[in-house]
Formats: sequence, C-alpha cells, structure tokens
Amino acid sequence: MIGQHIIARFAALLGPKGVITDPDDIAPWVSDWRGRYHGAAVAILSPACVEEVAAVVALAAELGVALVPQGGNTSMVGGATPPADGSALILSLRRMNRLRSLSADDNLAICEAGVILSNLHDAAEGAGRRFPLSLGAKGSATIGGLVSTNAGGTQVLRHGTMRALVEGVEAVLPDGSIFHGLDALKKDNRGYDIKQLLIGAEGTLGVITAAALRLVPAIAARAVGWVGVASPADALALLRLTEAELGNSVEGFEVIADETLGFVLGHIPGTRSPIETRTPWHVLIEVDHADLRDPGPGERLEGALALAFERGIAIDAVVAASEAQAEAFWRIRESLSESEKAQGPALQYDISVPVARMPAFMIEAADAAMARFPGTTASSFGHLGDGNVHFHVRAPKGTSDGPGWIAAQGQAINAFVHDAVVAAGGSISAEHGIGQMKRAELARLAGPARIGALRAIKAAFDPKGLFNPGKLIPLPDEA
Amino acid sequence: MIGQHIIARFAALLGPKGVITDPDDIAPWVSDWRGRYHGAAVAILSPACVEEVAAVVALAAELGVALVPQGGNTSMVGGATPPADGSALILSLRRMNRLRSLSADDNLAICEAGVILSNLHDAAEGAGRRFPLSLGAKGSATIGGLVSTNAGGTQVLRHGTMRALVEGVEAVLPDGSIFHGLDALKKDNRGYDIKQLLIGAEGTLGVITAAALRLVPAIAARAVGWVGVASPADALALLRLTEAELGNSVEGFEVIADETLGFVLGHIPGTRSPIETRTPWHVLIEVDHADLRDPGPGERLEGALALAFERGIAIDAVVAASEAQAEAFWRIRESLSESEKAQGPALQYDISVPVARMPAFMIEAADAAMARFPGTTASSFGHLGDGNVHFHVRAPKGTSDGPGWIAAQGQAINAFVHDAVVAAGGSISAEHGIGQMKRAELARLAGPARIGALRAIKAAFDPKGLFNPGKLIPLPDEA
Repeated sequence: MIGQHIIARFAALLGPKGVITDPDDIAPWVSDWRGRYHGAAVAILSPACVEEVAAVVALAAELGVALVPQGGNTSMVGGATPPADGSALILSLRRMNRLRSLSADDNLAICEAGVILSNLHDAAEGAGRRFPLSLGAKGSATIGGLVSTNAGGTQVLRHGTMRALVEGVEAVLPDGSIFHGLDALKKDNRGYDIKQLLIGAEGTLGVITAAALRLVPAIAARAVGWVGVASPADALALLRLTEAELGNSVEGFEVIADETLGFVLGHIPGTRSPIETRTPWHVLIEVDHADLRDPGPGERLEGALALAFERGIAIDAVVAASEAQAEAFWRIRESLSESEKAQGPALQYDISVPVARMPAFMIEAADAAMARFPGTTASSFGHLGDGNVHFHVRAPKGTSDGPGWIAAQGQAINAFVHDAVVAAGGSISAEHGIGQMKRAELARLAGPARIGALRAIKAAFDPKGLFNPGKLIPLPDEA
Repeated sequence: MIGQHIIARFAALLGPKGVITDPDDIAPWVSDWRGRYHGAAVAILSPACVEEVAAVVALAAELGVALVPQGGNTSMVGGATPPADGSALILSLRRMNRLRSLSADDNLAICEAGVILSNLHDAAEGAGRRFPLSLGAKGSATIGGLVSTNAGGTQVLRHGTMRALVEGVEAVLPDGSIFHGLDALKKDNRGYDIKQLLIGAEGTLGVITAAALRLVPAIAARAVGWVGVASPADALALLRLTEAELGNSVEGFEVIADETLGFVLGHIPGTRSPIETRTPWHVLIEVDHADLRDPGPGERLEGALALAFERGIAIDAVVAASEAQAEAFWRIRESLSESEKAQGPALQYDISVPVARMPAFMIEAADAAMARFPGTTASSFGHLGDGNVHFHVRAPKGTSDGPGWIAAQGQAINAFVHDAVVAAGGSISAEHGIGQMKRAELARLAGPARIGALRAIKAAFDPKGLFNPGKLIPLPDEA
C-alpha cells in the first residue's frame, strides 16, 4: 500500500484539485464498468497540463510508484483497472479536456487526452466537419483512451480504426520526457514511428496527453438499406459489388444471422423485420455522400441492389424511405448485444480474420463449437467488411447458473474459439485490446517472435514496469 | 575483417548460390548509387527463402557478425552501404523475388522482399489492378527496401506512403525468430504494432522478408492540367478547391517555381511552357478516375479550374488535350532534378512541414537562406499537398569547385535549413530516411524523448548492434 507521505509528494506537485483521496470519489474508478475486475488505489492523480503529467511521471519513477493511466474507464478487457493490492495510483487524464484547436481548413483537431468523444463529435459538427469514429461508450470514452486502445467502431470500413485518424500525438514517456509529436506531418521518416508504437499500447509505454486527429467532411445525405441474403459468402459478394458500384461511399456494412435478428424482434418491443421474406442472413448497409451535387445516395444504392438481384446475390431488399426508417434499421443493429444477453449466459469474442476467409469462418467455427460443446448455440454478427465479428457461444437452453457454466466451460471454450481464430490467420483481439482479460491467451498463442518483441519493447520503455502493470504484456509464468 | 572460416559457415547454410565472394561481383553493392558512400564487405549472403534468412541471422548472432540488409541499393542517404572497415556482411534479399500471391478480389499482393517495384506494377496491371506507389528507381528498388524505408513518391497525396499500403509483413528479428505477420487483418489489437515498427526501420531492427500490399483499381481515365498561380499560398488554395470539387480523385499535385521551370526549358530540348502567361508559380495537377461511367475527369477538372479563375486563384491554365500532351507536362516535372543539377553545385533537402505552413515556408526559408549565404539562390518544388518539397540551395553563380563549396559551406547551410524546418514544426527527412547521411543532424535536432525512444527500441531488438550498424541511430558521441 502506498503511504500518505508519498501522496503528499504528489499533492505538492498538483495542488488540492490534482489529487483525489476520498474513497467515495475513488470507488467508481477502481472497478471496470462491466463489474468483472476490481482493483484498489489510495489516490487518483489528476494533472491539468502536460507539464504536470511529466512532473508526476518523473516523481513516480523516482519513488518507484506504479501508475495506471485512465480516461473514461470504458475498457472491455479490464485495461484501466488498477491492481487489487493497491500498489498503483490512478493517473486520470480527465482534467486535461481542452480542445486545443480545430481547423476546418486543415481538417484537423488537436484534443487533449481527456476530451470526451461525443464532445469532439459536437465540436467537429459545429465547424461543418465530422470525426468519423464512434462507439457505444462515446459519452464517457476519452480521446486518450481511444488512441491508447486503437479503438474501432462501426465506421472502420470507410475511415479505418483510430490509428488511421491520428496524425500526431503528445505523450509523456516513463522516464518523464515529453514526446512532442503533434505536428501533423504527412511524410516523416525520422526513424521508428513512435506515434504508431504508442497507439494501441494501452498505457504500458507511457501516457498520451494529446492527439492531432483527422476530420472528414460532414455527411450531406445518406441511404440505409436492409438486404436478405442466403449466406455470409453472399453478404461478402454484396459488399464487393457495392464497393465496385459506389466506390468508398459505403460507410456501414453489418451482417446479422436470422436467428440473431429473431432475438431482437422477440426482445425489443415495436421492432419488426425490415424485409418480408425470411432469409438466413441479413445485411444492414449505409451509403453516405458528402456532396449534395452527386446523384442521391438512395438512387445509387438502389442501382447497386438491382444489380445484386440480377446476379442472384440478394433475396429481398429495402431502402429506408425516411430518416425515421433508417434509424429503425440501425436500432435493430444497436439492440443486438442487449437482445443476445437476454437469451441467457454466453461467452463473447471480439475476433478478426482476413476478410476473404470470414464467410467460411462464420459458418464453420459456429458449427464446430456447437459440435464440440453439445447443447450450446454459436453464431456471429458484425463488421464483415472489416473481417471483424462478435462471435458468441451461448450456454445450453435452460442453464440457470451462468457464472457456474462459465467457470466450468469458459476456459475450454475460450481455447477452442481462439484456436479456430489462429488457424484462420486471425487475431484474438480485433478491437478491444488485451488488457488483463486476454493476457494469458495472448501468451499462449502469439508465438515467440511477437511475444519476444512485446516484452523487449516494454522493457526498453518502462524498465521498472511502472506503467499500467499487469496489462497487455504476459506475466513471466504466462509464456 | 571477417575471416574465411566464418564465410564457410554461412556457405554451409546457403550453398554456393547463396554466398558471393568474388570482389567484382561485390563491387557494385558496397557503394551507394550516387557515389557518396563507400564501404567494404568480403561476402554477400543471398538466401532464397525466409528459413534461410532466419538461419543466417541466427548464425550471425552466434558469431557476432554484423549484417547490412540490402535490396536494390537505391538509398538516397547511404542506408544500404556497409561500413568501410569490412566488419559487416551484406544480406541481399534479391534472390527472394517471388510474388507469392496476387488476388484482384482481395486487392492484395504478397511479395517477397526482393520483388522489384516495376515487376509488381506489371503484375498488378495484368490483374486489372495497380499498386499506387512509384518513384524514379522503380526498375531497381525492391519491396523490402521500399517497406523498410517507408518510401513515398508522386502518388502519396491520394494513396499515402508505403506505410498506408502495407497490410502485413513477414520478418526475421535479430534473435533469429520469424515474425509471421502476413495475414492482412483490418483490425488487430494484440499489443504494440510490430509491423508499424519495422516499416521505416531501415533494416536496423531485423530484416523484412515479405509484405502483403494493398492494390487499388486500375486507372480508367485521367486528366492532366497545368495552372499558373501567383504564389504557393494560391497553389494551396487551388489544391483545397480541387479537393472540395473533385473529392479524392486528385492524384498528382506538384508545385514548381517559374525560375525552376526556366531551368527545364533552357536545359531540355523541345520543352516549352504549357501556358502562355508568365506566372511566378506553376501547378501540375492530375485527376484520375477508376470508373469510366463517371463524368470524364477532364470535364470535372475544367469545372474546378473555372471556379479557380472565378475566385482569382488561377492566372492561366490548360488541360492537356491528349495523352501525349499530358506526358509532356509530366516530363517537365520529371526533368526538374536533372535541369537543376545542370545549373551548378547545390545542396538538396528532402523536408516536410505541416501542409498549412508550407506556402509561407517556401517563400520565407528561401529568402532567409539567400540573405544568410550571399550569392546563393534557394527555391523549392514538389509535393505541396503532402507538405513535402525538395528545397535546394544553389552555389553562387560561377562557382566552379562544387565539392570545395560544399566542404566549406555545407555544414552551415545544412544546419540553417534544418533549423528552419524544425522551427516550422517539420521533419528533416520527409521520405528518404536517415541512413548515415542525416544521422548527426537527427541527433542534434530530435530532442531527448525521440532520441531516447529510438535508442531504447534499437537496444531492445538488437542488443549486440548487428543490424545495419551505423545507420539511423545516432552514434554515442552524436547526441
């Protein structure tokens, strides 16, 4: 446990607003939002500027105190939860929440780490632009956390993950030095790309204090369609067809099994299937245009769908006739997780494989899991065009003791699903990261070159192991 | 000097085809193509597959032998020239020249490191696709070298540098382990991005043996225009206007001072200015379309230029009426370096600054350099939209002893130009890398956080310093 004399040293740097020690104020930040991981910390350090962050980091290095960088605390993998033994302090970036600049001409926003995503969305919109990354936690998630976890979301198909949107970062490295990398250079070959290394490092190599982010034109018009298809392979054929016909204006492309759609229709009052025909698989597609002078996206999407019928790819399809209908289509997609949860206990996997292999993977991995674990049902839905689906294995019908089922079967099912992912050349973490949840599975599956490189980089940047201990890097007995 | 018993150990691994020891065969590969750097090596190791590379690296680690990875030997900064004392062997990737796969459906090519760029261009074209990165050395430069140096070229504005086109890499790390990262995953958050770290590492962290590369649709039609403008600021306004009007179909946008155009017209027989009015600055612009069903690019470019006249941005402009005329426009651009060279001795800088600051930089840095070094003339041309220009300072008229002038003035002028770049938030190496040429200036200007991170990563991956010694990382006495 960290003593009061140590807290006093930090308080002397940061002043009273910069150090939180009231247990009631600390409580919400020592567990993850899903309630799976529980830690302890005697204080939250909350610096107001990069110089204060650097001073905190230098003092922590001097004193040998571990730090857990934290933004909105919305990690899906326990990535921002401090160790349970109270051996670390939380380094909150939430007070660093200034939008330092926003230029519509340059399509660039410079945000401090504590800026909340939805606030950036609003600011960009106010300037006639948009920041094209969004996810469910947008009201809490911060820019620093989103960069540190290379966040994804539903707009990756067109705009990429956070990595593709970050033009520069400012960070404090574990030795207390400030990395000044906010100048947005389109070309820069001054050696190893430190920015790329910090993106997705989950706060284990230092702490990001600000980022320069790329903005894109606001959406002038959108068309949202719902298409019934026979298989994931046909869904992929539909994606390729729409890309060929509509270029890079396809902004959303989500694939849903009919069974999963059924969960939503049974669980969410007032929902109904957008199409009349019962088809094995469904596709939600959104086409956007930034320029109103172009042919309407609705007309263009209808043209592409006509071709899909002609080629036998689509069985049934509808294009939303109004914005309200478009929103109803998206509401189905956004209700999938909740509706799945209502079916009973399940294990959920955030996985990716190469796009071309995904249709076969969706069918074969589900069949294999159900055969290997009798009584379970397995299926997937999600971002087919990104090669990323949410793969779920549900407990046998009537399982009342969910935690008991997970305790008994979880490890075997985890290993089974992850082995299938690796066999398909995929990743056991598409967008959520490693955190503490997937650390042991990473150790088991990553192979010696990757594990060796991860450990070497960690030791090089943070030789004392003071940054976000226990996250991402497999423990000594884990590989 | 490395003894024959050591060469025999490598020969036992690679067979007679895999080890070159004839000094005549080695000679072309121990100096850089510009003749600025001269090294020595008693052998070139030339493995035929990744397993042989891994075996070579493991043996080199065991014996403490340094390796200089080499592709086409087209570095602009001495990045592939071995040390002069013969303490390293060249590790040539040229025998690993298989195109392992090319899928038009997946827009993906998997190339071994030794594939020559123009061969990939041809293969992509044969499949109805293209690989959108090109540069002067395309007939010699190899994929491994292009990835290891994060190469640029004239298509970066639309398609990005090599970094944006690499979907996966296979590499051998200095400990002899093989990093298997060729599966092209659009989303993968398994910790630090090793691929990004190897891109642009100039062979100092291991050796890339293959890469998965993104292809794009072939060009169906193009329009090439020449526009006279009053200033670099107006050139940038023209770029912003064409981007707003033509979306991301602007594939080339090169800015040229009237004086520089004059060098070409005076030096290259048969060239003439594409426009009749004499304007201080010129823009070469190319608009491409992949889809013939779209309105013709010529028509769209003319529409954008009409708007540029209306807004007072363009003074004079012409759109090439034929493919032959389009090629004549590009020939002017491609003759700039040669024509500049014919003016006499000059120092050349490959630099970048944030795009918005580039117009002012082009004027102010040139004026400042001419004021500080009387008699010199300074100007720049190049990729304005990438924030990357070639900045040249020419010796006073009549200077006959070029090397003498460079010896006397070079260091001071280098420092002056690089200081100006750093003051503008820019990079002293936009696309050529650091190699040995810019190592000391990187040490002087990069700042402690960046230098510390570069050194820490290098030591973590290559603790014995056996990979491309003397390149990229400042020497102990340099920072």
